[in-house]
This record gives sequence, structure tokens and C-alpha cells, in this order.
Amino acid sequence: MTRSGPVRVGLIGAGWMGRFHGQTLARRIPEAELVAVADPAPGAARQAADELGARQAYQDPADLIGDPAVAAVVIASPAHFHTDLVVAAAAAGQAIFVEKPMALTVADADRAIAAAAAAGVPLQVGFNRRFAAGFAAARRVIDDGGIGTPQLLRSLTRDPGGFDPAAVKPGAIFLETLIHDFDTLRWFNPGARVLDVYAVADALVHPEFADRGLLDTAVVTLRFDNGAIAVAEANFSAAYGYDVRGEVFGSAGLVTAGDVHATEMRHLHAGGSSGSTVRRNIDLFRDAYTQELADFVANLRGANRPVPTGPDARAALAIALAAIDSVAAGARVALPPDAA
Amino acid sequence: MTRSGPVRVGLIGAGWMGRFHGQTLARRIPEAELVAVADPAPGAARQAADELGARQAYQDPADLIGDPAVAAVVIASPAHFHTDLVVAAAAAGQAIFVEKPMALTVADADRAIAAAAAAGVPLQVGFNRRFAAGFAAARRVIDDGGIGTPQLLRSLTRDPGGFDPAAVKPGAIFLETLIHDFDTLRWFNPGARVLDVYAVADALVHPEFADRGLLDTAVVTLRFDNGAIAVAEANFSAAYGYDVRGEVFGSAGLVTAGDVHATEMRHLHAGGSSGSTVRRNIDLFRDAYTQELADFVANLRGANRPVPTGPDARAALAIALAAIDSVAAGARVALPPDAA
Amino acid sequence: MTRSGPVRVGLIGAGWMGRFHGQTLARRIPEAELVAVADPAPGAARQAADELGARQAYQDPADLIGDPAVAAVVIASPAHFHTDLVVAAAAAGQAIFVEKPMALTVADADRAIAAAAAAGVPLQVGFNRRFAAGFAAARRVIDDGGIGTPQLLRSLTRDPGGFDPAAVKPGAIFLETLIHDFDTLRWFNPGARVLDVYAVADALVHPEFADRGLLDTAVVTLRFDNGAIAVAEANFSAAYGYDVRGEVFGSAGLVTAGDVHATEMRHLHAGGSSGSTVRRNIDLFRDAYTQELADFVANLRGANRPVPTGPDARAALAIALAAIDSVAAGARVALPPDAA
Amino acid sequence: MTRSGPVRVGLIGAGWMGRFHGQTLARRIPEAELVAVADPAPGAARQAADELGARQAYQDPADLIGDPAVAAVVIASPAHFHTDLVVAAAAAGQAIFVEKPMALTVADADRAIAAAAAAGVPLQVGFNRRFAAGFAAARRVIDDGGIGTPQLLRSLTRDPGGFDPAAVKPGAIFLETLIHDFDTLRWFNPGARVLDVYAVADALVHPEFADRGLLDTAVVTLRFDNGAIAVAEANFSAAYGYDVRGEVFGSAGLVTAGDVHATEMRHLHAGGSSGSTVRRNIDLFRDAYTQELADFVANLRGANRPVPTGPDARAALAIALAAIDSVAAGARVALPPDAA
Repeated sequence: MTRSGPVRVGLIGAGWMGRFHGQTLARRIPEAELVAVADPAPGAARQAADELGARQAYQDPADLIGDPAVAAVVIASPAHFHTDLVVAAAAAGQAIFVEKPMALTVADADRAIAAAAAAGVPLQVGFNRRFAAGFAAARRVIDDGGIGTPQLLRSLTRDPGGFDPAAVKPGAIFLETLIHDFDTLRWFNPGARVLDVYAVADALVHPEFADRGLLDTAVVTLRFDNGAIAVAEANFSAAYGYDVRGEVFGSAGLVTAGDVHATEMRHLHAGGSSGSTVRRNIDLFRDAYTQELADFVANLRGANRPVPTGPDARAALAIALAAIDSVAAGARVALPPDAA
Repeated sequence: MTRSGPVRVGLIGAGWMGRFHGQTLARRIPEAELVAVADPAPGAARQAADELGARQAYQDPADLIGDPAVAAVVIASPAHFHTDLVVAAAAAGQAIFVEKPMALTVADADRAIAAAAAAGVPLQVGFNRRFAAGFAAARRVIDDGGIGTPQLLRSLTRDPGGFDPAAVKPGAIFLETLIHDFDTLRWFNPGARVLDVYAVADALVHPEFADRGLLDTAVVTLRFDNGAIAVAEANFSAAYGYDVRGEVFGSAGLVTAGDVHATEMRHLHAGGSSGSTVRRNIDLFRDAYTQELADFVANLRGANRPVPTGPDARAALAIALAAIDSVAAGARVALPPDAA
Repeated sequence: MTRSGPVRVGLIGAGWMGRFHGQTLARRIPEAELVAVADPAPGAARQAADELGARQAYQDPADLIGDPAVAAVVIASPAHFHTDLVVAAAAAGQAIFVEKPMALTVADADRAIAAAAAAGVPLQVGFNRRFAAGFAAARRVIDDGGIGTPQLLRSLTRDPGGFDPAAVKPGAIFLETLIHDFDTLRWFNPGARVLDVYAVADALVHPEFADRGLLDTAVVTLRFDNGAIAVAEANFSAAYGYDVRGEVFGSAGLVTAGDVHATEMRHLHAGGSSGSTVRRNIDLFRDAYTQELADFVANLRGANRPVPTGPDARAALAIALAAIDSVAAGARVALPPDAA
Repeated sequence: MTRSGPVRVGLIGAGWMGRFHGQTLARRIPEAELVAVADPAPGAARQAADELGARQAYQDPADLIGDPAVAAVVIASPAHFHTDLVVAAAAAGQAIFVEKPMALTVADADRAIAAAAAAGVPLQVGFNRRFAAGFAAARRVIDDGGIGTPQLLRSLTRDPGGFDPAAVKPGAIFLETLIHDFDTLRWFNPGARVLDVYAVADALVHPEFADRGLLDTAVVTLRFDNGAIAVAEANFSAAYGYDVRGEVFGSAGLVTAGDVHATEMRHLHAGGSSGSTVRRNIDLFRDAYTQELADFVANLRGANRPVPTGPDARAALAIALAAIDSVAAGARVALPPDAA
């Protein structure tokens, strides 16, 4: 697909993450033009549209999807709306960038993938780590044979403190957080399939929410069909900031990515040495958030850049769902052969 | 000064650096609108304007300066045109961002400063390190008292290899490269004045150009009136990339900034550990180049962000000229009391 | 116990590790005197005794244990002799330092502990990481409350390449290698007990030995009774060297220890940056090996330094045995309440 | 020279550094036997001999030098006695390790060198950085061509705070501290000769001692005959610890050595990241102090390890003296052709 002129993009979801994507489109990607914003909260779309310089505001996302001036949508609504929005946008012939998780059930994932395929529209999913410079460099080392055959992998996410337990849904640590790590682990072990998972999780940050199923700490062990063993690890409250790291050990070496430091500046003083750390995902991943949307837009203009797609989202979801089952069962859970 | 709407900016100089500034203005600073480009080379302005989405192209910079639609200019011409362009733009009431060096003589520096002052227009100079995140963080530590009174300072620039000696002018290592370090050292020692300098320099990369005065390696020692001793160091051909670092040691500690690594990714293999390094100034300083222009534009819209100005350029120039004299004399050279 | 004069030590086992301990005693710990060496291999004890400056050589370890001039023994024989040697040395009233694993069954561990207790002799086990400077510093941070309550822990061992599969016994990755990590994890989570483990393991380095049960890669997940979740990870063939790292994440922060770099030297060149890595455990842990024996000896002379003892060895062993069971069962295995 | 049995060493000077060398000989170098200690302070030699396990104590160093049981001396007296002690020990046929500075005048340096040469005894000088693992690794990179031709060098020493100005002699920062850096710079630029130096220095830590000539901060620029330019930098009071670093930049790359961190442990917490720093030279250089004496002893037993000798001490001294002259003159000072 090749198009000339900027790609006219509509943003669905004017919450915090949606507006951040909107700013990225408006300020950092000249090949895109943010033309519309939709959000069901009264006034939210209008305010965001004004702030972001978009002409059109819709309260009903269906209206944005029906707008013929919108060639592509960025979906940043709450997760449980993602699939229906993907299906509708696909039906309207719009190219789709959807935040993770693309779906909350495998059936929904299949539905989204099928809709995009039927419509022949691109479907990209917001697995941002693939676009972070250090992670991308690690993947290049892997592709170049620098670590040989992967044998041990690790991916972790530690969100900064201050989350509101009331706003977190059961399963969130798997479906919204570790789903990033599951994608990273698959991406760091190209061509391999996850056989089974074993997950343990607990409410260690807010034990008082444990009976609501609000797990804030989790460790998942995955076995791949090439023998590699991987660990994904998450916690919702890192005192020191936003910590995302990965490593892959293989027959020929090790590659690591991720650093929580805000800059390379170091301070030595009577108490020792100090550095400052990153406190927000948008500080750690600002350039990654730009790159994923830039590649989305570039592909719409004829480029052929590798991006995470519907099947990637389905695979990561299948792992997350198996992890949830594993916690409940206290046992290893095998994935279906076609799952991940 | 407060203005609403994007700041209409004209770019003078469509060479490599000029076009990079143009891209920054066009793509990364929504508060700016690049409206015109001027370059004396036939066709250069037109081509750059098209590439950058600017409406207007001028072969004669005077025409851009005379364009009433242009509220601010970014001057990225060859250095010896800088002063005259600053003076002309000031006379036209345009706000001015000028690449370093703003002038090649103290008289010219005074002329530029006076013109801007007479016209009441902002005059910002392209000392980009002040806007690099690590250097800015170091300065905050200094401001917060984290190193106490500065006693020993260091700033270095090592350009990546591959320069064309034929394109380099005598004095360039001081006037075009170390002038950054002189500014950094002054900025890292706020309120202190440089008393004298001692410089040694040589043609070590291209000894065959030594007799043309083309010095490619230099070390300058500066004494400040608060007792601090500083070293600035430059070389035109670092095999490993673009290396810019600074450190300040004081009575209470040390702060360091600058890292040549491209990302935090590390690779361990049979040969040891490896990382990759940055090869171009625009990779090392991309965000700094954005920030300096963003602050320039923000100040035009009413902000009050600290930026390097004409007197800073004059002070760094005075140090550079004294360093040139010092090399010639083989001796320490004192700066005039009002110089730096 | 307080004794004056150097502690007279006998070394049992003149293999590679035994001789290294002997050198440490002879060269780096003036408070110890290596007086005897025993090894059943013909001539081995004599050769080692000469090399190490010990007066006495015994082919039968029982003779060394029966030697009244020997106040303390360092047991570095093959693992399956450890328990019997501990019991015999205890019966002879000798203080005991025994390499890990102290025993291969819990019953043997109990037998060793009981023997030492009955005889009133010190029984220290060779968990060297507790004595590595970085790991010890991490533990101090933990003790000082610097990470709050531990929530996520990691310990890994990656041995350098080149092992001889024929010399490795089934279970070795758990009983000889990961047993270090199990001890480290317990030591990094003071006062907590391991509830259960889940282990996966495979023959990835030498798949041809898989049917002999020679596992060379393993990942073990442990749950502690304070909620903390830990991961231990091992591989027998790291291309880049000897890699031992640990980290503890808690409610107030993170602490990390371990670095595979041989020195702080870094080399920047046309290919990027490079450092060299450590290839042998005795290079990575030279000072730790000294410190553990120095503390053993110091305690015999009246000091009261914290060291890993029989119950620590029993706890780590129980975890290793549960991990072996877990691999066989493909399921989580609970530890007995008194185990670890 | 080849000798069997441990080398019988006598220690001259039972001050802090002398006793440290004595402990190194007694505890870490089995090939050496510390047989005697001499110190003019009443009782000092006896106390040190007892502490170090040496049989013999002398109040008069001449008696130790006259002791036929002493094959080698380690001279750690105050600096102004060094030369006479070297000359006397040489006359007695003793091998000599002398702390820096070997002499305080070039004439004395020549006298020491001549005495050792006439007697045919080894004369090693205490330039410990050559034996620090990171610095030694850097030198290997240089020897292997990893940085090409040296062009820019740096060596710095920042002593930890708390020095007693009353105990410091004028010139000490050059003769006792920077003399290390001068040796390092020569050693990092093998085969090159220093042409001239320019030094600036001040009393910034204790300005009240400036009029006594007690300079505590200094920067020295050196030019080598292969074109390389070097900077040596010292300060007597680093708030954060003991900081010794070096770097060499050349036509093919850069190598750096030195790190003030006490261990690789890092702590991340609400305030950012932290590490701890080394506070004493004997912590930073413990292994280097061992290695220099181990090599001294090994050479006496027939090895042929490269060590700094009398001519190295003379060359570093000549640079230090020229630096002192340069401070006084406020100008560049050339070294005699045969000096460094």
C-alpha cells in the first residue's frame, strides 16, 4: 500500500495514554495528521481535539470510525472495548493501531485478526518494547547470531509506585502488564513456540486487596519448543521508578537491554555515588512510543517495517490466559499447539 | 514577549546542519512553523524548502530577513557570515538563533550583541550541550550545591573520524569545536570568570596539513577567578564515534556527564563484552538540538527559559582567541578583565 | 572458643578445588597453618603437601582426621564423601569447613549437623557468595532496610564453557551448582522459609547426554512464606565467562550484585566498546574464597563472624532435592515445614 | 638472579605505609619472609616486628642494612631519606624496593641509580598503578595496538579528604602525588619522551595555607615527543573517596581505567540509584600493592617481570620538578633532553 500526503489518523480514547499518542502523532510524526478524536466521556474528545490540533471531535467512537476522512485509527480505549473497535474499524477499511491487549479472550483475538484480514487493513498492536532502542539493538544481536541459540530468557516490568488498586482489574498484571513481557520473550526467541507456563502471583504491595484477586506481583516460567526457558516478572510498585529490562542467554553469549537511569549523569559525594531514575513509562519509552507510531504510519505509506500484529497479540494473550489458569491451578499449564 | 500561534521561523543556510535544524523545527516543535529557507547556492533553498515543507525559498538571505512573515531566524550559514546576518536580522526586528560561533572577532561579537540589544530582539547561540539531558542534570547538581565549590573542571569533544582537512580552516579546533567546551566550562562554573589560558595543539591526525595551520588536536588549561582550574580537550578523529564528556570536581563532590554509547544494550560473548557507540553529533545530541530550538521558540511565546546568549558567545570566543594566541606564543595568555 | 597461635588446618582432597583452598590457607591467611593434606589418589597428597608447604601427607583421610596435630579440617573431596568425613572429623573434635554440598540426602545432612553439635565443633559450609564483596554489600543494604520487604529475588550461576559431560553426575546442576543460588536466595531473604519450588531443566548444551539425565540448564521458582517469589537459574556453558549475579527487589527498592567483567577497563574502538570478562570461578571469587576461610579461622580464634552452617546446607539441599522432584513430576513440589 | 627458598626481606620504616607493606609481605607473598624491621622511632620497629612476625627489630636502619640475613629491603621511610637508604642498601648488596619518590633531586636520583648499578642489585620503585588490574589491562590494549598512536592522555589522583596540612610539605602535590600520574602517563605512552610541561596549582582546599606554599590542587599539561599531549590532575580532598583514573586516546581508539566504586553492588531506591565508593588507597590498590611486591620478589627468584626502576623514578621526578618550576614561572618549562 502506498499513499501520498500525510496519513489522516483518528484517535479513539482521550485518556492519559490516548492523549500521549495524540501528542506523538501531532508533534513528532509529520507524515501523520491527527484529524479526529473520539471519547465517550462528555467533553473529553473536544478538549483533547483542541489541545492536539485535531479538527473533529466525536463522543461516539462509531462516528469517528464512520468518518471517511479518517484513514487510520489509534485505539487507546479501555481494554475491553479494543476488539469491537478493531472489528468496526476494519469493517470501515481503516488501518488499525490498537493498544495492548488487543483482546481479552482468544476468541476475540481471532475475531480481530479475521476482521483485519477480511478487510485487508493493517493491524498493529502496541507492544512498545520492540521499538525501544536498546531492545531493538538486542534483537539485532540475536538476529546476527551473537548469542547463538537462545537458552535462557528474562523479561521484567516493574511499574513505578502509586497505582490505585481500585482501578485495577483482576488479571491485570497478566493481561495488561506481563503481556508486554510475553511478547518480548517471543520476539527475543524468533520462531520458537511456547509449550507451557507456570505462574505464581500474589498481592504483596496491597495484601488487603488479595481477596479481590488483585495480584500485584507475579513470576511466570515459560518453556519454548526449542528448549529455551524464559522467566517473566512483574510488580506494580517499584519505589525507584519504571524498570523494564530483558536479557537473552544463548549458546554463544548474552545480550541485555533496559536501564532505569534517567540520564548518564553520575554524582559522587560523601555518601557514595548517585544517579537519577526514570519515573514514568512515557519518559523511559518516549522514543519507542514515537517509533511504533512512525512505523505504523510509514507502513501505510508503503514501507515494509516489521511490527507486532494481531497474531502476536493473540500469542501473548494465550500465554497470559494460561498464566492466569496456572495461578489458579497451582500447576503448569500447557498451551494449545497453535497458541503461541 | 508573548505571541500566540506558532512562531514563523526562517532558516538561513541549507547545508547539512541547517537542514537538520529545519527538520527539527518542522517535525518536533509544533509551536514553530518553518516558513522560509534561504541559501545562496543555486537551487539549495528551494530543494530544502520543499523537503521541509516551507512555503518560501530565497537565494539571498537578505530577502528572507526582509520578509515580514518571518518572525524569527535560525542562522546556520558558514561561520564568517554569522555576525552580519545577526546584525541584519536584528535590524529587521527578527528574533535570532545563531549557530556557534556567533562571531570570529570580539569586535564582531560586540557588534552582534549591540544590534540585538538595540532592536530588543532575543539572541540565542547554538551551545547545544546545555540542552543535553545529562549535562543539564549535572548543572542542576551543581546548582543544588552537590559538588560544593568547583575546583577542577573538564570538557572534551572528540569528533568522529572522516573529516576533510581541505574543508577545515585554521583555528577551527578552537573557534568551532572547543568553543563548545569553553561555554560548557563557564556554564559549569556559574559566576566565575576566566583569568587566563594555556593551549597546546598539534596536527596529529593529518600531520601533512600542519604547515597550513590545520590543528586537529588541542588541550587548553583555563584558570578561573574562583580558583577553579579547567581543561578543555579536542580531537577531530575519534575512531569510536562522537565523544563529548564533562566533569566538575568540587569541595563536596564530583559530577560527570556524557556517554558515547548508542544504547544501554550490552553483548557478552566469547571475546568479552561489547556495546555500540554513537557515530554522529545528531545522534548523540538529537534531543539537545530539539530542546535548544524548543526553548528558543518557547521564549518567543512568553516563557523565560535560560539559554546561552550573545555575551556567552562573546566570552567563549574570547577564550578561543586567547587559546589561539597561546599556541602561537607557547605561553599563558591572560584574558582582558571584561572578557570571559 | 579462643585459641592462640595459628590454627593448624588439614586439607582433605587434593583436587583442583582442594589445592586452591590449600593455597589460600598457606598464602593468604597467616592465622592458619596448613599442616597436613590427605587424598586417596596415590601420591596426590604428597605432591600437594610439598607444593603447599604442609608437613604431613596422608593417603587415607582417616589418618588426617586421626592426627592430633590437626585442629581443623577443610573438606574438599568429591561430594559423596562429605557427610562421612564431617561425621568423622566431628568425632575427632576437629572444627570443620566442608565444601558444598555438605550432604546429598536430608538424612545425611541431619547426621552431619548432629555430629558437629554432639562434638561441639564449628561446622561451616562453602557457600562462597556470602563472602563476595558485592553480595555482602547487598546483604548490608537489605539488613539496613534499603529494599524494605523482599518481594522478588533472583540468583543465577552460569559456569564458563568447556565442562566434561562425562564427569557430571545427574542432579549436579541442582546439588552442586544451584545449591549456591538457593543459599543466596535464603540469605537475601533473612528469616523467611521456602514453601515450595517449581523447576524446569533440560540438556541444551549437550542434548546428546539428556538421556543420561545430565541436565545443563535449569530454572527454579521458589515461593517464600513472606510472600516473596524467587528465581534461581543455572547453565553449565556460558561462552563469555563465569557469571554469577543476584538481585533483590522489595517494597522500598532494589539491590543488585555480581558483574562478569574482569576489570573496570574499557576499550573504545572502531567496532564500539569492549571489556574483558572473567573466565574462572577462582578469578571471580578469589577474595570470597579467602574471606570464607579467613572467617572460619577467625571464629576458631574467638571471633563471632556470621557464616553458613550445617542447617543452611540442609535447607539449600532440601530445596535442591525438591527441585529435582519437581523436574521429574513436572509440577510444583512443597517442602516439608521444617525444611528450608 | 635466581635464588631458592623465600626471599628474606627487611622493612625500613614502620609508619602506616611501611606496616602495610610489611603485612603484604608477611600475609600475601609466601615467596617472601619478612625477617627484620627498622624504624628510628623508639619502640616502633619492635612493635611492628612483633605484629608482622619478623624476628629482628632495629632502631637504626643502618643496622638492618648491615644485617647479612637480609637479602632485600623495602624502603618506606619519609621521602627525604630514600636516596641515602637506597645507596646504603645497594652498597650492602641488598635488592631494593623503594617507595616513591625515590629521590627529591635529579642528582640524588642519579646517585641512587648509580649505586644500584654499581652493586648490580635490582632497584624497583613504588609506582603502584602499573600493577592495578585495570591499568595493567589498559596497557595491554595499548601494547596490542588497540588505540593506535597515543594522542591525548589523562591521569588523575584525587586523595580522600581529611589530610593534615601541617604534615604536608611544599611541592608534595608534585613530588609525592602527581609523580604517580607522571609515571602512569609515561608508561601509557611507551617510548615517548616528555618535552615540556605547564603547571597550574593552587590552595583551594586550605586557602589559609597558600602562603606556606601548600598547594592542594594542580593541573599539569605535558607534551611528548611523539606529539601526544597529556594532562595530570590532582587534588588532596575528594569528598567521595579515593579516585585514580587514567585514559589514553589514540588514532585507533580510547582506553580508560580506574573506578572509585567499592564494589559492583548498586542500590535503587526512592531517591534514585546509589553505589558506595572507596575511601582509602589501600582499599583501591590492595591487589596492586601485593602485585608490585610479588613481582619484586619473583624477579629476585629468577623471574623477568617488567617493573618500574630507577630511571623511571628519575624521569617522573624530572617532570615533577619542571612542574614546580612552571608554577613558579607561570610559564611552560622545557625538560632537558635526557630527562623524561
